[in-house]
Amino acid sequence: MPKLWNETIDAHRAAVRTAVMDTTAALVAEQGLASVTMSQIAKESGIGRATLYKYFPDVEAILLAWHERQIGGHLDLLVEARDRADGPGERLKAVLEAFALISQESRRHHDTDLSAFLHRDQHVAEAQQRLHGMVRDLVAEGVRTGDLRDDIAPGELATYCLHALTAAGDLPSKAAVRRLVTVTLAGMRPDDTP
Amino acid sequence: MPKLWNETIDAHRAAVRTAVMDTTAALVAEQGLASVTMSQIAKESGIGRATLYKYFPDVEAILLAWHERQIGGHLDLLVEARDRADGPGERLKAVLEAFALISQESRRHHDTDLSAFLHRDQHVAEAQQRLHGMVRDLVAEGVRTGDLRDDIAPGELATYCLHALTAAGDLPSKAAVRRLVTVTLAGMRPDDTP
Repeated sequence: MPKLWNETIDAHRAAVRTAVMDTTAALVAEQGLASVTMSQIAKESGIGRATLYKYFPDVEAILLAWHERQIGGHLDLLVEARDRADGPGERLKAVLEAFALISQESRRHHDTDLSAFLHRDQHVAEAQQRLHGMVRDLVAEGVRTGDLRDDIAPGELATYCLHALTAAGDLPSKAAVRRLVTVTLAGMRPDDTP
Repeated sequence: MPKLWNETIDAHRAAVRTAVMDTTAALVAEQGLASVTMSQIAKESGIGRATLYKYFPDVEAILLAWHERQIGGHLDLLVEARDRADGPGERLKAVLEAFALISQESRRHHDTDLSAFLHRDQHVAEAQQRLHGMVRDLVAEGVRTGDLRDDIAPGELATYCLHALTAAGDLPSKAAVRRLVTVTLAGMRPDDTP
């Protein structure tokens, strides 16, 4: 087959995958994981049930694929936020703020069962490690420039940061999330108490 | 029946309940929630299966009772830590440190399924609210004395605190947990930047 034809097929497959994942995520958010069926997903996605099974074996597999795509998208957002900012202090702030806003947004979608299901996924652990590494490197940069405290290891400070910012899920507004980022960053400033 | 006799029966019942709850918690920690049976719990607790059913209808009920007792015990510890400390700054620090150490300890016992099961419990929400209220009041006290920042509401600072301290679950030592408390408190100091 000519290359163009292959590309057309690939694009079509990717579009079907995307539509199926988005439909499934919306259905699960509405009804909960337990009650969504493959037939319902096929119908709502506008494809045949047999076709759907060529793409995914079950609802869980679709949801994991969707979640993997979400996580990848979130990490990309953080990398973009980092690379758009000027200087170490601004870079760290931009990443923390982007992460806090994502935490606020994601929290709303999660019931505890769904969250437990998704967080058994190995991809989550890997993404958390990459995220932790990214924040740790930015913190280390801030320690070198003297903007952040050097009495605690950057890895520990990164762990503190990421947990503190999950508070965003309990906060009502973006303004509150920005205040949270301010407080979280303030905790990492050099300790001037004698 | 004489009062003493009633008290003896009550004490016996309480002792059986305690033994059953502790046995169940240990079995669930070892084997996971799904595989523990009432027969196994009766056997390990040294009582008959029929007797066990007079106390609890199923494994989930035992585990919820155990968890409720744990949460109550943890809140008591925090109140004790608060009341033992001198002055507002020390009281807040004592409560935060006690909470962080409990978080570190509890995290080790939780797999995600068990955690999702327990956290659907209404008692958890109530305990979290009491805890949040306790920390918020201590923060408000610190704001009044000028030790903590007044540009952010005490309730928001309490939310920040409690999330930041859950980082203790990912930290390897008590020394690291104390450093976490230091950083978390530092975030709430008055903002001196011009």
